[in-house]
Amino acid sequence: MGRYDLALIGFGGVNRALAELISQRGDRLAEELGFALRVVAITDLRAGSLVDTHGIDLAPLLAAEPGELAFAGLPGGSAEPRNEWVIREVPADIVVEATFTNPADGEPALSHARWALAAGKHVCTTNKGPVALACRELKQLAAEHGVGFEFEGSVLSGTPILRTAERMFGGLEITGVQGIMNGTSNYVLGRLEEGVGLRAAIAEAQELGYAEADPTADIEGHDVQLKVMILANEVLGAELCREDVIREGISKITPEDAQDAVSKGLRWKLVGSATRRPDGTVDARVAPVALPGDHPLAGISGPVNAVAFHTDLLGTVTVSGPGAGRIETAYALLSDIIAIHQRHHADDDTAPAHRVPQETSRV
Amino acid sequence: MGRYDLALIGFGGVNRALAELISQRGDRLAEELGFALRVVAITDLRAGSLVDTHGIDLAPLLAAEPGELAFAGLPGGSAEPRNEWVIREVPADIVVEATFTNPADGEPALSHARWALAAGKHVCTTNKGPVALACRELKQLAAEHGVGFEFEGSVLSGTPILRTAERMFGGLEITGVQGIMNGTSNYVLGRLEEGVGLRAAIAEAQELGYAEADPTADIEGHDVQLKVMILANEVLGAELCREDVIREGISKITPEDAQDAVSKGLRWKLVGSATRRPDGTVDARVAPVALPGDHPLAGISGPVNAVAFHTDLLGTVTVSGPGAGRIETAYALLSDIIAIHQRHHADDDTAPAHRVPQETSRV
Repeated sequence: MGRYDLALIGFGGVNRALAELISQRGDRLAEELGFALRVVAITDLRAGSLVDTHGIDLAPLLAAEPGELAFAGLPGGSAEPRNEWVIREVPADIVVEATFTNPADGEPALSHARWALAAGKHVCTTNKGPVALACRELKQLAAEHGVGFEFEGSVLSGTPILRTAERMFGGLEITGVQGIMNGTSNYVLGRLEEGVGLRAAIAEAQELGYAEADPTADIEGHDVQLKVMILANEVLGAELCREDVIREGISKITPEDAQDAVSKGLRWKLVGSATRRPDGTVDARVAPVALPGDHPLAGISGPVNAVAFHTDLLGTVTVSGPGAGRIETAYALLSDIIAIHQRHHADDDTAPAHRVPQETSRV
Repeated sequence: MGRYDLALIGFGGVNRALAELISQRGDRLAEELGFALRVVAITDLRAGSLVDTHGIDLAPLLAAEPGELAFAGLPGGSAEPRNEWVIREVPADIVVEATFTNPADGEPALSHARWALAAGKHVCTTNKGPVALACRELKQLAAEHGVGFEFEGSVLSGTPILRTAERMFGGLEITGVQGIMNGTSNYVLGRLEEGVGLRAAIAEAQELGYAEADPTADIEGHDVQLKVMILANEVLGAELCREDVIREGISKITPEDAQDAVSKGLRWKLVGSATRRPDGTVDARVAPVALPGDHPLAGISGPVNAVAFHTDLLGTVTVSGPGAGRIETAYALLSDIIAIHQRHHADDDTAPAHRVPQETSRV
């Protein structure tokens, strides 16, 4: 059985949840998947960096309170994250990127992905920024170095959206996608229908942990805008940049609007959509839409997200599931690792690079 | 580029729609999929059989009215279906089985599948019967002969349910499935909510083409029972037979019941479910359930069907789409052919058996 050595870049909720999965069910996963996972490096803005090319013992790290974690003083540890050095120099097969990243410029995730791919390491990331802003460049870089670049978690966490589009619709044409792709705005719209005002509903969403301290990106559609851009480019083969995606948020919708719609059998939803025009170009937008009750997205409530694929042969096929969550997003990373294995190593006798019986002979 | 030669068994709406796809967009499909499709045999209870190992010209057959089609008198044609001879003896790579089959004993589809697999031919079928009743035997037979047995269309036509379960959830555990898997009963329940009586609603469904002349299998849950059995066995690894799936239909639900539920925020749905019990066995049943409004299946209306996968790492992921339809079911067959190609021939230099440049040298 083979093994992949992972470098975890960012050790917040998501990569921590991935480390928990590996620590708690690594043996079961290896048996099912046919390969083992081992963490050889972790970097984190606050905790610093930790490297052990024989495999980091995860249990003690996971036993510590997240805020208390400090790698300085541990063997192979440092107070500095040393991201570039770790990504470029530490021998790992897959760089698992889950840092806190600015979606506007995609940093630091974008640099992390570039360094890793250029070093011939597979990359999986949960960050939208690098995918939305530089997917073509990063895929090109991955192809040049014979490695994978996977990012299922950039849209709807671990709910299989990008991979469904890629693998489940061979031979038909996807003519458009429509999605509810932001849990905060969806929760808020549900509360408006119940007569709660916008500010109060946002405060509730913050208390429930759905919304960030600054809810602007959720409420004004910036978050969905990036996801629409990813869907338009990945699923419909467009080459849009952010400015090509028309954006309108939900802040002008009142409880009266929402309740009036319900009385007419409609439901206001923040819908991100990308639709092939007759001339082959793609119309992409995020805007509140009053959906009829029988629309496949009308029943999507609260933190559940969904994407509807409109197709020529199957009509509409909709996939709904969690839009966020640390374990759910960690699962996206695991599904990316599985995809990397299938695409690059499943039929390859010489890989994964590390045959488990040889592990003691490595660095 | 390679090519698959197909024998179409049954030339009703579904295989006719597949023939239309091949006839109308065969070149485009070949370009996308990397292989060509050619029909070398067609059998049909009414039309007889037609064989041309150099490839049947489909256009004139598709131009004829379905009821008027008669193969006798055509070169290679016969008034007899000659199913067994065609399946066993005509050189084809894939037997595409879409006959009108009795779900109780799975015939004639079950015999067709046995003959084809024993002859070393891949099989794809849209019939539930052989899958529900003999899947283990047929898979075993397929494995012995190094061929594939695929049946996406047996559950929710071309909506990717079985393949989603198989390919999208690596590394997590599916703890249960719940589905709305019958369009007729779902339409009828929607009409009950609007105050229409059961008989009138069934008559409407028949007029709309959803329901058979005898609606018993739809209304009393027999159809869903077989689908639950398939899901339990395929997705949860159970080994249930039909009697193990508890069955209750919707005929006892009145418009008053349905409307009363709506007033309480509930919706009656005919739900088929299979759930892993703590002891590892599987509870499987089909029964009307009053679902809360925020349940992922509560918003599934009319002819749309859906299956919710309950998982340990992702919570609930739901796939909805068409539950029936000739083109939609033909697409299931196409997706099966793609799966056969990926599983058996994609990395194989010698297959598909037929390299297009050599086609004139065959038989």
